Amino acid sequence: MKHINPKEIPVPELFATLLGATAPRPIAYVSTIDEKGNHNLAPFSFFNMFGANPPTIVFSPSRKGRDNTTKHTYENVKVIPEAVVNVVNFDMVHQTSLSSNDFPRDVSEFKKAGFTPIESELVKPMRVAESPVQMECKVLQVIETGDLASAGNLVICEIIKIHINENVLTPEGKIDQHKINLVGRLGGNYYCRASGSALFEVAKPGATPSIGVDSLPENVKSSRILTGNDLGQLGSLKKMPTQDEIKEAKNDEQYINLKNDETKIHLLAQELIAQGKLVKAYSILM
Amino acid sequence: MKHINPKEIPVPELFATLLGATAPRPIAYVSTIDEKGNHNLAPFSFFNMFGANPPTIVFSPSRKGRDNTTKHTYENVKVIPEAVVNVVNFDMVHQTSLSSNDFPRDVSEFKKAGFTPIESELVKPMRVAESPVQMECKVLQVIETGDLASAGNLVICEIIKIHINENVLTPEGKIDQHKINLVGRLGGNYYCRASGSALFEVAKPGATPSIGVDSLPENVKSSRILTGNDLGQLGSLKKMPTQDEIKEAKNDEQYINLKNDETKIHLLAQELIAQGKLVKAYSILM
Repeated sequence: MKHINPKEIPVPELFATLLGATAPRPIAYVSTIDEKGNHNLAPFSFFNMFGANPPTIVFSPSRKGRDNTTKHTYENVKVIPEAVVNVVNFDMVHQTSLSSNDFPRDVSEFKKAGFTPIESELVKPMRVAESPVQMECKVLQVIETGDLASAGNLVICEIIKIHINENVLTPEGKIDQHKINLVGRLGGNYYCRASGSALFEVAKPGATPSIGVDSLPENVKSSRILTGNDLGQLGSLKKMPTQDEIKEAKNDEQYINLKNDETKIHLLAQELIAQGKLVKAYSILM
Repeated sequence: MKHINPKEIPVPELFATLLGATAPRPIAYVSTIDEKGNHNLAPFSFFNMFGANPPTIVFSPSRKGRDNTTKHTYENVKVIPEAVVNVVNFDMVHQTSLSSNDFPRDVSEFKKAGFTPIESELVKPMRVAESPVQMECKVLQVIETGDLASAGNLVICEIIKIHINENVLTPEGKIDQHKINLVGRLGGNYYCRASGSALFEVAKPGATPSIGVDSLPENVKSSRILTGNDLGQLGSLKKMPTQDEIKEAKNDEQYINLKNDETKIHLLAQELIAQGKLVKAYSILM
C-alpha cells in the first residue's frame, strides 16, 4: 500500500489523486447570473444530489488551483442566490468542456459553447436547451471550506423546478438510463459513458437482512474459483436453502457427474450464479 | 418537455427522477463506529469530493424513505465524528450491495459482506482491505437538510490519511483509471463501469480563452452533418487558422476533388476532426 499524509504532498498532486479515486463524478453544468445581468455557464464535477425531501443538490466552484482566484459561478451565487443545474450527456461533452476555460465576465459561455439559452420559470439564470434535464434551484447556503488555492465552496441548493426532455423517458415516463446517455468525470482527461455496455444491474438487497457471506462454508469463502462478486450474490439470499432444495440440487445428474471434485463443483456453482440460479448454486456448495 | 414541480409529486417518484438524472454517482463505502465499539459499514452514492485544500468530501446517509428512521452511519458520526471512506470497484460491487440492507446494530457488515477489516492509523473506524483507496476522515460538520423521510444529512469530512493499493497505480505512481476499475451508481438497479471501453478522453481547454463555437461560419454552425461534439472541438482551438493554413488546406487534392460540395466538405471536416486535425478541419470550412 502507498500511504499519503495530505499535508505532506503538494496540493496539485493531492488534487490529482483525489480526482482519480473519487469517480465517476456526475457533471453539473451550472448557469448563474451576476447583478448586471451577465450570464455565466460552467461545468462542475464536484456535484451530487444529497436527499430528495427537500430535493437537495450541492456543487463546488472551488478556488482556482492556478492563482487562488474565485470563479464567476461562486461570485454570482453570492449576490444572486439562484442557479440552473443542467445535466451533461455524451452529445454535449465537447461543447461543455470548451466552456470550462476562463472567458471574461462579459462573454457569454452560451455563445462560446454554441448552446441555446432558454428562460427559466422560477429563477433568472437561463436553462441549456440541449441538456436533457434542467433543474431550477435556489441557493440556500454557501460554505467556504478554506481560503487557500483549491479550497472547496459548497453551494447547497434546493431544486424548485425540474424540466425533462421527453426523448429520454421510458413509455412509463421514467428516465431511461440508456436514452439519457449521461457522462461522468474521472481523473486526468478521462470521462466515462454511463450507457450501453458500461451499464449493469445489481438487484437491491431490500430491507430484510440477507444471510450474508459469513453463512457460507469455509472452503467456499476461501475458494480460488469463486470471486467476491460470486460470494456477494450467494450471501444476498434471504434464507438458507432447505434440505429439500439441497437434495434436489445434489440429485441433478450434472452435479453427480462431478464426483465431489471441489474445483469442478465451484466452477459449476459459478456458472449457476451467472445464470441467476442462486439457490441451486448455494445448495451444491453445502 | 416534461415539467415537474417537486412539491406536487410523491417523494418516491421525485427521488427516482433525481437518481436517474444525477448520475453516474461515485460510491463511498463508509466505515464508522458507535460509542460501544460496534463497527458499521454502508455504501452511499450521495457522495463526492468538493475541494483539495483542505481535502474535503461530503456524503449523505439520508433519512430512510421507507419509515423516516435514521441510518447507523448518521447516528455513529454524531457521537464518534470519524469515518473511513473506501472507494468501490467492480470486483467489490455485489458484496458492497449486500451490505446496504438493514442489519441490526450489533451485526458486523464486514462479516456479512465478507470483507476484511484492517485498522486505521488515525481514526477508530476500520478500513476495508479489499478497497483500492481508503481515506481516513474526521467529520467536521453534519448538516441536516430536513426531518421528513428522504431528507439528506450532509456529512462534511476532511481527509487526514489516504491509503492506495499499489496495484492500481501507473509506473509513475498515479492512479490508473483502467486498473482501479471503479463503478458508479445510476437510477434503478443500474451501475456503470468506469473502465475499458466506457472511458474516453477530452483534452482540457486550459486557462486561455478558446475561439468558441460562435467563431464558426453560420452554415457550419447549422450543419446537418457536423454534431455538437464536432463544433465543440473546432471551437476549442486557441486561435483562428492563418491565411497560410487555410490556403494549404484548400490546396489539398482531397479538398479540391470535393468541388465546393458543402455536404462532402462537412463530411471531410468531420473525418479530420476524428483524426484530431482540428486546424485543417476548421480551415476547409472557412
